[in-house]
Amino acid sequence: MTSQELTEQIFKKQTFLCVGLDTDIDKIPTYLLSEKDPVFSFNKAIIDATHQSCVAYKPNIAFYEALGASGWRSLKKTIEYLHTEYPELYTIADAKRGDIGNTSRMYAKAFFEDLGFDSITVAPYMGKDSVEPFLEFENKHTILLALTSNEGAYDFQTQKVDGEELYKKVIKTSLDWNNSENLMYVVGATKAEYLAEIRKIIPENFLLVPGVGAQGGSLEEVCKYGITSNVGLLVNSSRKIIYASDSSNFAEIAGAKAEAIQNQMKDELAKL
Amino acid sequence: MTSQELTEQIFKKQTFLCVGLDTDIDKIPTYLLSEKDPVFSFNKAIIDATHQSCVAYKPNIAFYEALGASGWRSLKKTIEYLHTEYPELYTIADAKRGDIGNTSRMYAKAFFEDLGFDSITVAPYMGKDSVEPFLEFENKHTILLALTSNEGAYDFQTQKVDGEELYKKVIKTSLDWNNSENLMYVVGATKAEYLAEIRKIIPENFLLVPGVGAQGGSLEEVCKYGITSNVGLLVNSSRKIIYASDSSNFAEIAGAKAEAIQNQMKDELAKL
Repeated sequence: MTSQELTEQIFKKQTFLCVGLDTDIDKIPTYLLSEKDPVFSFNKAIIDATHQSCVAYKPNIAFYEALGASGWRSLKKTIEYLHTEYPELYTIADAKRGDIGNTSRMYAKAFFEDLGFDSITVAPYMGKDSVEPFLEFENKHTILLALTSNEGAYDFQTQKVDGEELYKKVIKTSLDWNNSENLMYVVGATKAEYLAEIRKIIPENFLLVPGVGAQGGSLEEVCKYGITSNVGLLVNSSRKIIYASDSSNFAEIAGAKAEAIQNQMKDELAKL
Repeated sequence: MTSQELTEQIFKKQTFLCVGLDTDIDKIPTYLLSEKDPVFSFNKAIIDATHQSCVAYKPNIAFYEALGASGWRSLKKTIEYLHTEYPELYTIADAKRGDIGNTSRMYAKAFFEDLGFDSITVAPYMGKDSVEPFLEFENKHTILLALTSNEGAYDFQTQKVDGEELYKKVIKTSLDWNNSENLMYVVGATKAEYLAEIRKIIPENFLLVPGVGAQGGSLEEVCKYGITSNVGLLVNSSRKIIYASDSSNFAEIAGAKAEAIQNQMKDELAKL
């Protein structure tokens, strides 16, 4: 999916919500554990209940990897279900990968070709040749970690390199890489005031914003500093939606949570 | 395995070689493709032929992930084979993971508990709370990316932060984290002269040194600047060993390559 198609979906559905499928086998309703593939059953129910209120889904790969081969099967079934039932939805592999060139290429193939994700999150520490193999794929996005939503972001990301913060250096440097038009960036919602600074460097690129909800960020703040005329935002919420309830109607309650966020987003879109 | 036990193994076997199991289905001898699990068959043959010349194996997870669920099965069979047949060998999951705390914990469980690796490589960009969940595991090592062997290392790692290079800042900062005694560091062999600088900060910690061989680093240089009285080095070679031949005696040739490196290492150990 191209950025333009994503923007069109956002205006059409009046939402820029991304639902994080951080599906933890220890946190899903226990009655699902008797199903053949509890993780997929949970994801399917969440997707069916929330798809009208979001434009994207973001499985965090750690939760699937923790289950080994069976986790990979659940992940594959989930992405195939999305492709078949809701092909208009954008998909993000939250993998935070990055390795030397020939190895990054293996990761890119795994997530873009075999699993067919629209995008993947990538860590910048190893630089240009660790990221470019992801950027080579047409109509796929590479979402570079810039400023993350956790406390540890202050350890290195906000440290000054040549007089400016490392996360700014990362963003600026990445603009010179081959196929940089395929870049998006992760910017945590808990640091909304930084969005204004970031928009000076990348006025148009999409930003994936985690940390609204469970991690304490505010949607209004994020939009105030980060929204563009093409929206340019995917705001993620995971735990606040998918674990809103552990009762038998968990999906319905997740759907209501997603719809509530969609309604807030409608108000923000109306301001454009 | 503790660092002390690893040192004992090194002196006993007279080698600090780590063999990288970057097993690419497109590069292994084609006659193996008719086997039930070609990746495992290849790994088993390589391990049987090289185990006397090395102290560690390092599967790069990308190569397994690229094969989806079947890749995870091959990885699991490989690590189980090592645990059963050669329990004295140290194992490294070259995964370069790192995420917010609760997610890093999932990765740690996947690699330390489910797969039973002795160690995992981790990226530092997200800081303290993305790494500490790995450090909590007793008798397990977290191998932090400091200075990698690729060109892109110059994009950020060697940039100055507060007057010193980012990779030094990463190492110094990490020493204050909980359970930092469980840290090792990745330092590329293509930058051997940096090892002297690094040894001023961490005189004792083990360093995992990739880039000897295919990537052009020299073992002699690495030892000159990096070796300690407890050795403190694991020098990795992947492609130069495992793909030394694609004929039916590929394993034997790999074994000879590993033994040749072991012989060089014996000379270096004799200097201590």
